Amino acid sequence: MSSSTQLRILTAVILMPAVAAAAWWSPTWLVAGLGAIVAVVALREFFALGDRLGFRAYRFWTCLAAVGIFAQQWHAAQAAIVARLRDPLYLLGTLPVSLEMVLVLFVTGAAIIALGSRRALAEIFSSVSVSAAGLVVIVIPFSAVVRLHSVDVTGAGPSFTLNGLSRAWSAPGLGRQLLLFTLLIVWVGDSVAYFAGHAFGRTKMTPHLSPNKTWEGAGANLLAALLVAAVFAHWMKFPQAHMLKMAALGSIAGQVGDLFESAFKRSAGVKDSGTLIPGHGGMLDRIDALIFAAPAVWYYFEWFVMKRV
Amino acid sequence: MSSSTQLRILTAVILMPAVAAAAWWSPTWLVAGLGAIVAVVALREFFALGDRLGFRAYRFWTCLAAVGIFAQQWHAAQAAIVARLRDPLYLLGTLPVSLEMVLVLFVTGAAIIALGSRRALAEIFSSVSVSAAGLVVIVIPFSAVVRLHSVDVTGAGPSFTLNGLSRAWSAPGLGRQLLLFTLLIVWVGDSVAYFAGHAFGRTKMTPHLSPNKTWEGAGANLLAALLVAAVFAHWMKFPQAHMLKMAALGSIAGQVGDLFESAFKRSAGVKDSGTLIPGHGGMLDRIDALIFAAPAVWYYFEWFVMKRV
Repeated sequence: MSSSTQLRILTAVILMPAVAAAAWWSPTWLVAGLGAIVAVVALREFFALGDRLGFRAYRFWTCLAAVGIFAQQWHAAQAAIVARLRDPLYLLGTLPVSLEMVLVLFVTGAAIIALGSRRALAEIFSSVSVSAAGLVVIVIPFSAVVRLHSVDVTGAGPSFTLNGLSRAWSAPGLGRQLLLFTLLIVWVGDSVAYFAGHAFGRTKMTPHLSPNKTWEGAGANLLAALLVAAVFAHWMKFPQAHMLKMAALGSIAGQVGDLFESAFKRSAGVKDSGTLIPGHGGMLDRIDALIFAAPAVWYYFEWFVMKRV
Repeated sequence: MSSSTQLRILTAVILMPAVAAAAWWSPTWLVAGLGAIVAVVALREFFALGDRLGFRAYRFWTCLAAVGIFAQQWHAAQAAIVARLRDPLYLLGTLPVSLEMVLVLFVTGAAIIALGSRRALAEIFSSVSVSAAGLVVIVIPFSAVVRLHSVDVTGAGPSFTLNGLSRAWSAPGLGRQLLLFTLLIVWVGDSVAYFAGHAFGRTKMTPHLSPNKTWEGAGANLLAALLVAAVFAHWMKFPQAHMLKMAALGSIAGQVGDLFESAFKRSAGVKDSGTLIPGHGGMLDRIDALIFAAPAVWYYFEWFVMKRV
């Protein structure tokens, strides 16, 4: 076992339980806050990649917009809950805060910064492009972790039932179970793929992008995610078919995200996006699969499990 | 009067009534459809600017996402109306279609295209960036025209009142009035600024960007917009204070949008973004102010005029 592998395992043993604990015990506002911090760190690594290509982002303003997007996602989650519970906070939930609005504020601010900036005029196109891309490629998909964590069918009224489940079925903390599930399909899938790929990997998947990835590893990732789903379905007493589909979607989306981030790095001519975590590259390397897996699980859940009447 | 000025006037005399008529007599779904076509044309001009810098967008997929955003805005408008009217279509209105979802689908597709593309790896960063930027800078702000057009207080129930207005007050077609108002503050403001700038313009505003723009012209634009607001307040029997504030916001935002688009063009080293309309440059030149003015008016209306109980 190489020292890089040992370091990788050691870090994982410390980091993963810490993240899982935060996902489990934090209230949704804290998940949104921690998520925003992670997103801002990843965004800054993305912008550092852009710098290498001469695309200089409006860093501060875009990071502020990232925080705004997490706040808006928390608000959207809150609005769904208070509307269902007919809470006195109902009025807060109906404030018309939308992603559209955050993005329009971002663009307006970016325009003012671009027009007022002393940077060369020729840079405006690339600066605006890389700033906007950071939000669309990283922050918006990743912010689905907030919506996942907020799922809660306690007090489910007529406006909220779970498709195909008895109305009597109720699960406080369903959201944190779903978020933990998403983290685990990514982590277990990634680890199993790593070792299975080393042991049985024959067919290179993307030699130009990520030379160590094999189709055997990718298949192992998917199988491991399905196994996680079976365990969670049993533990959560949740219909197995839904869990298996969410795991398959999350695993495939996560692997696409992993490759996509590798493509960004290669495109900018570097191997790791940062060196924040020993043996694991940067934050962006750590969350690349989660950025795509979290919205895949969330939209499956929103469309096919939640049922609005 | 130069021949370019004559051509500009002639085109305006044909085009503006046609656009105003479409805004006035079309149902909201048609406004969304026409808006999507305009957005796609503008987006392609934006991508042509990017091409000059070597940023090659994923054109087809991004244009499809633009159509998706207009469809989603139509859906959001529809959902607000049917929820209020307790229409049998209520269930359609509650399909969880969101801008977040459209953007996540866009990113996932862009990732698959990027990974499967035979383009050079080095292009991925710039291709993804300019594609995402087109949606954030042009399509999302411009899609506010759909929301503006859909405003309708006919059948206003307890869930919808207008702030500070009697409950008995009702205005079918309020949305088309607001959209026409937005078009007119931009058009009248722009035209008055053009002629006032030529007549009285002394103080150059942005010599490096748009050498003909003067602070006198900008002031004239704002004054003209306020005049349009006074006329509309009288015609619509709508509180004058709201109309004046919307006009001021729309005029200033529109002028920022105009300059921002000039900055993009200069950044790419061209004067006009296209040559679609004689004397008027391209589509992007025509709608640059509207891209910023429409969301400014819409968010003012949503936040300060509509009141949700």
